[in-house]
Amino acid sequence: MEDKRKLVHSRIVEKATNEALQRRGVTIEDIAEIVFEMQLPYNADLSMDYCIESVESVLKKRELQHAILVGIELDELAEQGKLSAPLQQIVQSDEGLFGVDETIALGAVYTYGSIAVTTFGHLDKNKIGIINELDTKKGRGTHTFLDDLVASVAASAASRIAHKSRDLAEAEADNQQIISDESEIAKKEAEKIITDESEIKDEPKS
Amino acid sequence: MEDKRKLVHSRIVEKATNEALQRRGVTIEDIAEIVFEMQLPYNADLSMDYCIESVESVLKKRELQHAILVGIELDELAEQGKLSAPLQQIVQSDEGLFGVDETIALGAVYTYGSIAVTTFGHLDKNKIGIINELDTKKGRGTHTFLDDLVASVAASAASRIAHKSRDLAEAEADNQQIISDESEIAKKEAEKIITDESEIKDEPKS
Amino acid sequence: MEDKRKLVHSRIVEKATNEALQRRGVTIEDIAEIVFEMQLPYNADLSMDYCIESVESVLKKRELQHAILVGIELDELAEQGKLSAPLQQIVQSDEGLFGVDETIALGAVYTYGSIAVTTFGHLDKNKIGIINELDTKKGRGTHTFLDDLVASVAASAASRIAHKSRDLAEAEADNQQIISDESEIAKKEAEKIITDESEIKDEPKS
Amino acid sequence: MEDKRKLVHSRIVEKATNEALQRRGVTIEDIAEIVFEMQLPYNADLSMDYCIESVESVLKKRELQHAILVGIELDELAEQGKLSAPLQQIVQSDEGLFGVDETIALGAVYTYGSIAVTTFGHLDKNKIGIINELDTKKGRGTHTFLDDLVASVAASAASRIAHKSRDLAEAEADNQQIISDESEIAKKEAEKIITDESEIKDEPKS
Repeated sequence: MEDKRKLVHSRIVEKATNEALQRRGVTIEDIAEIVFEMQLPYNADLSMDYCIESVESVLKKRELQHAILVGIELDELAEQGKLSAPLQQIVQSDEGLFGVDETIALGAVYTYGSIAVTTFGHLDKNKIGIINELDTKKGRGTHTFLDDLVASVAASAASRIAHKSRDLAEAEADNQQIISDESEIAKKEAEKIITDESEIKDEPKS
Repeated sequence: MEDKRKLVHSRIVEKATNEALQRRGVTIEDIAEIVFEMQLPYNADLSMDYCIESVESVLKKRELQHAILVGIELDELAEQGKLSAPLQQIVQSDEGLFGVDETIALGAVYTYGSIAVTTFGHLDKNKIGIINELDTKKGRGTHTFLDDLVASVAASAASRIAHKSRDLAEAEADNQQIISDESEIAKKEAEKIITDESEIKDEPKS
Repeated sequence: MEDKRKLVHSRIVEKATNEALQRRGVTIEDIAEIVFEMQLPYNADLSMDYCIESVESVLKKRELQHAILVGIELDELAEQGKLSAPLQQIVQSDEGLFGVDETIALGAVYTYGSIAVTTFGHLDKNKIGIINELDTKKGRGTHTFLDDLVASVAASAASRIAHKSRDLAEAEADNQQIISDESEIAKKEAEKIITDESEIKDEPKS
Repeated sequence: MEDKRKLVHSRIVEKATNEALQRRGVTIEDIAEIVFEMQLPYNADLSMDYCIESVESVLKKRELQHAILVGIELDELAEQGKLSAPLQQIVQSDEGLFGVDETIALGAVYTYGSIAVTTFGHLDKNKIGIINELDTKKGRGTHTFLDDLVASVAASAASRIAHKSRDLAEAEADNQQIISDESEIAKKEAEKIITDESEIKDEPKS
């Protein structure tokens, strides 16, 4: 009998996640292409290599790995007709008001902040790239969870790039001082004190 | 062959949800007892009947029904050893860092506002009543998802009571005027105008 | 001195919410137009009147009212230069990585389920109708919070229509029986038992 | 006139965040004590120094910094009576059904996964340590947002320790092999192949 408490090594979880995506026909490049399309408007120098690296990086996160494993398991069980009624029918038909797929994908996306959440919503509605091809209602097979999970990975990777770009811009600015620095803040606070004085001063009523 | 687009009637989804809870040993009363314990400090007149009614009411919501059906399906599949590796081991052992159970339960709880979210967190940590009995790590069977789902239903029902109590208090206050009403606001706004006058200083007094 | 514990009547909160939207140049009709555009593809019979009613209905919810009051307050304080540094500069410039505006708006949208969340993300990215006009980076005034709040109200009202449409479709189906009902489920379960039997039966190996 | 697009350097945002906490009477140690209490049951070797480091680390995150700056600003404005009616009264009295404080704090906590969310809910309800002292309803001053923000920082730091402890345990296990590794997975997969054979029946063609 198996030991209930034995932990699964994260290396195994990561490997299983990558294999599951591959088995369902989704490559790192497919996802990186969505990231590229999402971030290009904000970053003219963006390369596909950088997007690939960002996708690989977010796929190392536990929350995303667990979400992917659960979602693909449910898709595959539905495809094989192995879920019990009425869940089988709901997942198989990718019902519009069934929201557990979005919920699981959202749970993973939160880790990358509110930009990731809005990007996810955008991808979920507009079904860019591989997300569109996976749409259960269009194609073959059941991908009720997978399309949302791919949107989740892409949104996370895009948000990661947005945050890193900002960090980079700041590092550069530290040399060139084009971003407001402490001396400016000090100046501003001085101005604020002056502005506030007129409010504070209680003028004689007479 | 089955029609992919055929919708499942919500009556069937509701019935399946109630049957699934029953099959897993959770009664409406079990959940209502948690609600009662959570809300009693804020509401001395609270009755168990009212808590039962509130639990029954939140169980009519699609988001909660779908969450329960998915979660119990995964628990039962894990119990039967039918999930694929390594998900089987992760769910079966209710791993501390596996968060999809909380994510699915949280998704359902959001519908009842931020109070429901914090109540859910409290129940998830403190495992009151039936939630404690369901703890996979303690008892027999796999209830990795179910304990969180019960916390979700209880938190939703408790939040629903909190909101309804307030509505009731306001309705009563409308007769007795113990809560600030329009006339007070008018008075307050009048005061504000006076306070602001020194800034505005616009009108001739004569 | 004011009583700390005195509650503000929800009627006053509702009135203040509507006045705040009006003061900032957003009408119920502006929001209803977004709802109409979002839901028309799923509902050919949709009328503007129904969208207006849905917007009015979600605006009665406490979570949305509180979010709107806080967000507009912060926009107005920023416009008047009354926030302290560096928050003043962050809100005034509607910084891309500032996410509290999305967070507050999302908090209100959760009440309407995961469809509302994805719709919100879509609106936030694609800035349809009045949301585009409010964009701080384009126009005059500070609307860092307001554009997200309007997206939140629109997404909530659209999700409300989606759920109600389904309820209506089911009510109609109850007469015409085009949706699978209990007898079908029973039939399906019977089939499942037969299917399962072959698995259970342990065939002789010889 | 100020340039609308000028970005505030993250160093300034970080400094302002730390100053704001200090100004409102919350030290890193106060928060670390909550973290210590939360994580000790899972980690007997836990030191206060490690908790302090974890709090300092999460306070470097943009999402948390922005949340803290907005929340403390609203608390201070309410304390000074500078919010407009009825928000002034709602924030000042820390109304039970006002949820924007929890929403803002939750938005920051999501970055640390679902464990952080449930820990936040627990802290929000049970008001441990400094969170209790800050309770607006008990003490002097307005801390409607601050108590939730401190819970958010503590929950994030606790979740960060939980994830890091697991990483460490795995690193150790890599030497001692007490956690199931690839060879076990391989064995399991071999078993699975045998079980599945009757289904696959893919025999050599020769």
